[in-house]
Amino acid sequence: MKRSILNIILSILVLSFVSCSTTQNQNANTPPDAHINLGGPRPAGQNNVLQLAVDPIPTVRVAIIGTGNRGSKASRRFTFMEGVEIKAICDVREGAVKRTQDIITGRDFPPADEYVGENAWREVVERDDIDLVYITTDWANHAPMAVYAMEQGKHVAIEVPAAISVDECWQLVDTAEKMRLHCTILENCCYDFFELNTLNMAQQGVFGELVHVEGAYIHDLRGQLRSTTNWRTPFYEDYTGNPYPTHGLGPVCQALNIHRGDKMNYLVSVSSDQFGMTQYLKDQFGEDSERAAKEYKMGDMNTTIIKTEKGKTIMIQHDVTSPRPYSRLHTLSGTKGFAQKYPNPGIALEPDAHNFLKKDEYNKLIKEYEHPFITEIGEYAKSVGGHGGMDFIMDYRLIYCLQNGLPLDIDVYDAAEWSCLFELTEISASNGGIPVRIPDFTRGDWDQLDGLKFAK
Amino acid sequence: MKRSILNIILSILVLSFVSCSTTQNQNANTPPDAHINLGGPRPAGQNNVLQLAVDPIPTVRVAIIGTGNRGSKASRRFTFMEGVEIKAICDVREGAVKRTQDIITGRDFPPADEYVGENAWREVVERDDIDLVYITTDWANHAPMAVYAMEQGKHVAIEVPAAISVDECWQLVDTAEKMRLHCTILENCCYDFFELNTLNMAQQGVFGELVHVEGAYIHDLRGQLRSTTNWRTPFYEDYTGNPYPTHGLGPVCQALNIHRGDKMNYLVSVSSDQFGMTQYLKDQFGEDSERAAKEYKMGDMNTTIIKTEKGKTIMIQHDVTSPRPYSRLHTLSGTKGFAQKYPNPGIALEPDAHNFLKKDEYNKLIKEYEHPFITEIGEYAKSVGGHGGMDFIMDYRLIYCLQNGLPLDIDVYDAAEWSCLFELTEISASNGGIPVRIPDFTRGDWDQLDGLKFAK
Repeated sequence: MKRSILNIILSILVLSFVSCSTTQNQNANTPPDAHINLGGPRPAGQNNVLQLAVDPIPTVRVAIIGTGNRGSKASRRFTFMEGVEIKAICDVREGAVKRTQDIITGRDFPPADEYVGENAWREVVERDDIDLVYITTDWANHAPMAVYAMEQGKHVAIEVPAAISVDECWQLVDTAEKMRLHCTILENCCYDFFELNTLNMAQQGVFGELVHVEGAYIHDLRGQLRSTTNWRTPFYEDYTGNPYPTHGLGPVCQALNIHRGDKMNYLVSVSSDQFGMTQYLKDQFGEDSERAAKEYKMGDMNTTIIKTEKGKTIMIQHDVTSPRPYSRLHTLSGTKGFAQKYPNPGIALEPDAHNFLKKDEYNKLIKEYEHPFITEIGEYAKSVGGHGGMDFIMDYRLIYCLQNGLPLDIDVYDAAEWSCLFELTEISASNGGIPVRIPDFTRGDWDQLDGLKFAK
Repeated sequence: MKRSILNIILSILVLSFVSCSTTQNQNANTPPDAHINLGGPRPAGQNNVLQLAVDPIPTVRVAIIGTGNRGSKASRRFTFMEGVEIKAICDVREGAVKRTQDIITGRDFPPADEYVGENAWREVVERDDIDLVYITTDWANHAPMAVYAMEQGKHVAIEVPAAISVDECWQLVDTAEKMRLHCTILENCCYDFFELNTLNMAQQGVFGELVHVEGAYIHDLRGQLRSTTNWRTPFYEDYTGNPYPTHGLGPVCQALNIHRGDKMNYLVSVSSDQFGMTQYLKDQFGEDSERAAKEYKMGDMNTTIIKTEKGKTIMIQHDVTSPRPYSRLHTLSGTKGFAQKYPNPGIALEPDAHNFLKKDEYNKLIKEYEHPFITEIGEYAKSVGGHGGMDFIMDYRLIYCLQNGLPLDIDVYDAAEWSCLFELTEISASNGGIPVRIPDFTRGDWDQLDGLKFAK
């Protein structure tokens, strides 16, 4: 009842507010968060999957859906692991399947069964000899495939973002809870070296209490605009906000123990207008070209601020259409110290936090707080490759936990919390930056766990 | 009429929104921006002061109100200039006046008349032999003193922020327009070397069209908490938001030509809770000390996002209570290139904007686009000192323009636009980050000028 009243008020507010600002409300008759599903009570007989552990799976039988850039590389990484079988590979393009098969067999790994076609993925996940479905398709297919795969009794690992709407996030959560299955998001940046080491420092109190953190995906991808087949570009026509929040959000949410003692309450999000794509297309195809005349709604820079239950703030940015150096920011600011990864990794600590640590002090600190994952597998991960090794550490941990019947590092609530910004930032950014509530996907269980702990 | 309706709606919204978030609305019965003065039509017979020029003042007779840290150093800087007389110095503390007098006479400058006491400043500005009143008191006194000084026919230069409420901002604007007098803000960061050089680059199109900019005041001032006489600290008890926005906002607003072709339309602002001051006071005075038990409302980190009429975004941060290296960010992101001052000055340009320019390329570019002010007076300014020279360039330009009857670099609208965030960020941050409109202090004349141009 209170929500419906709020929604009416919000709709009037947006009309009034927009009438005296230049922001565009895409559908003035729709209250900004009227259709946000805040969850409501958990269905009877359904329990949370916090710290979900299932029986050990000594040999993990994997099916890979989507053998493009990410899926083909993941296939290769699995060939470096013990106790993994790649049972099936699937894509809509036969060539992509063949190329991945060559990678697998080229590594003297047994060939995987090949599936090609729009609906081939259904046959794959319906098989009875698959433990883990590894979904590396375009983002619009992530959640539907994951939900169906779980309904078929399979654990799922989903590329980022795991879902592109709040409703899809709830579907992942509810299906995982109903089926008691793992649903993780393949957020490789959580396994990058600086992120893991500073997470370890944060957990051991090196920065005191964390107060403010920052993450981003700032990556000049304008080259993709030249392609007419790239699946991201069409999204930019009708969407504005942050469609790719998880690389920045994942690592900092882990540092803040989100849904392990704190939770994200609301966000405000503001996008610039679009200038970069049009300028780039003019430069590439000519001032008066049809390509340059194409209209895109997605602003070049989106900035989002999140407030948590415990009073912390998170600043998240997204810009893939401006000419600037790559950055995920990864800033951790606490009551005792500070860390920042970009443009150059730096750490500053009390009592001399006004200055970044000198190179030798920095290296000494990194060594002292080297994350156990890096000590254990870091060098080998680098030799295998995949974004400097982090991709391999991610897959290694996923397989290790499945083989040993342990809770995964990243659970379905992480997947939902990090991915829901796709829609929530659009609602805020399309309505003059109005505050939008962030659902508690644990349905009130966000403080049951005492901080993030990785299973051993 | 529309505003009153909006205000009612806003008030209900805040109640509804706050009821489902953890944010605190300080006065639930007050609509968040009900008391924001958006200006309304300009009074009959009153005209804007854009590009205001007055008769040349060959010898500028200066009175300095407030001879603490900033006023005493300004007095010294004036002794390095031709055509400046320091007629009067004033402070509530006799010692501060004496120390400043010693600085002046120690430089073989004629002694200034000394004024001491709470109301002595009124006598000073009532004198008939003063051209410019230079106000360097605590920020609560800035606007009242400036308004009275203008009413007495004096030009005024005000330390930052020039005002601490939107109403005070309007008083500065209306008094300057009524009296046809200069009212400038002493925003020294607009005259720092990197800021001036990159402004020059921006104005010459080196970065293409600017899309997103960032500024900040991140400066660990916790040491001030030890003092029981510091005038800033009491503000932290009842205020949250960004009370000191101008160092970050000034230079980026100049780059975006704010009120010279674009204008700021609205902002959203979110503050973290307060952790840093309490932790610091515990460390300094003991866990159970009275000092550590003191409650402060001001969050450690405030992040604000501003959207402009032309679709640009500005991100502004404030944090003076966390242990981290000093930063004003100063980020300029455009369709052709990128610049960032902190933690290390860097510039990246098409076609290789993925990488920051190498040292030699960077130095070459800086030399090529060195701002005329720096070429003219930069080295001398460094020798005089004052934040590395920027303070002297600021005063030099102020005096030069007055001596030559030229418009000032920074006008009363800049002073109002940059300072109004003091109150507007508090309103937004105290109400769950709700969007708050930013007044157009030019009353519709924001697009009369074609970009920022410095008078010669």
